Amino acid sequence: MQFTSRLIENAVNEISRLPGIGKKSALRAVLHILKQDEKMALQLAESIRAVRLEIKLCQTCFNISDLEHCSICTNERRDRTILCVVEDMRDVMALENTAQYRGIYHVLGGVISPINGIGPSDLRIEQLINRVEQAKDQPIVEVILALSPTMEGDTTGLYLQRMLTGKVGKVTQLSRGVAVGSELEYADEITLGRSLLLRTKAD
Amino acid sequence: MQFTSRLIENAVNEISRLPGIGKKSALRAVLHILKQDEKMALQLAESIRAVRLEIKLCQTCFNISDLEHCSICTNERRDRTILCVVEDMRDVMALENTAQYRGIYHVLGGVISPINGIGPSDLRIEQLINRVEQAKDQPIVEVILALSPTMEGDTTGLYLQRMLTGKVGKVTQLSRGVAVGSELEYADEITLGRSLLLRTKAD
Repeated sequence: MQFTSRLIENAVNEISRLPGIGKKSALRAVLHILKQDEKMALQLAESIRAVRLEIKLCQTCFNISDLEHCSICTNERRDRTILCVVEDMRDVMALENTAQYRGIYHVLGGVISPINGIGPSDLRIEQLINRVEQAKDQPIVEVILALSPTMEGDTTGLYLQRMLTGKVGKVTQLSRGVAVGSELEYADEITLGRSLLLRTKAD
Repeated sequence: MQFTSRLIENAVNEISRLPGIGKKSALRAVLHILKQDEKMALQLAESIRAVRLEIKLCQTCFNISDLEHCSICTNERRDRTILCVVEDMRDVMALENTAQYRGIYHVLGGVISPINGIGPSDLRIEQLINRVEQAKDQPIVEVILALSPTMEGDTTGLYLQRMLTGKVGKVTQLSRGVAVGSELEYADEITLGRSLLLRTKAD
């Protein structure tokens, strides 16, 4: 792609570094920015600067937060006896969007993945154990392992299960089965097979 | 989508205003920014600010430019007797990428479109006529109308053709026909019909 303007070339290069955005989409974005009010470009630039430089990690759950402690950990109405362990903040968002969970979280910051050189010590597992052990005034009754149903997720789940045994009331994991709204004929064999083995009482 | 951080919410909202980027892609972009070096976020933010606030329109051809006159208009090696009329700067880039054109450009800033309330006076047609009439030391021999083969493009082309008659040696337009590398069976009837009528000598 040839540019007649270095400013545009620069902006296109920077924007196309974002995941899922190629040079063409980046150019479209730049042309859009050029057509809009200056204010829009300044707001966009400022929001990018601010999100990177001002964001913090919650000191309790390691979820991303604007303050030292995130809005979930400081929310008095959340149930502090149920702790949900997730891989990253996207999973917190996904679970929050279900509006089905009123407990608190612990963000691991990844999953055990020997291929990528990520071992238990690279994750916030120690902090999780400490948290469980130190919750004496309000002991944690249940730890939900909300990890992806992948090999890495399962490995991490098994590891955590072993580490948590005897320290909490119970350790649970998300149910596995055919996705709601999906067509049976398109479900993969492993999922379908498992959902048959793990069948629940029809209600 | 629920966010636990206002900084992230803000950045996602701003980024998702760009064309072709939804909330999910914007969130992915924000999470990517968070993982990267601070420098990357600052460079991205600065490139967006700069492209909007520092960009200029070339005073000759109205192409987008870093300076008062764009790099094509100031390039001594471009042929000033051939002028290519295009809708916007994206078309300049597309034509430059072919490496087949050594003349200069004129960017209209749009096409005549009564549905969208865009008439000839909203475009840089007056400036085009002035430019053609004032090019006395190096008269313009050919004006190429490189407009999109749409109804609006054709309308604009016809209008320009009438306005330019008698003022330049010749007015030409891009050839129309089946796209190179495409399959005949998938060509639409109008294109195929025209390409039959406008057939050229096989060489």
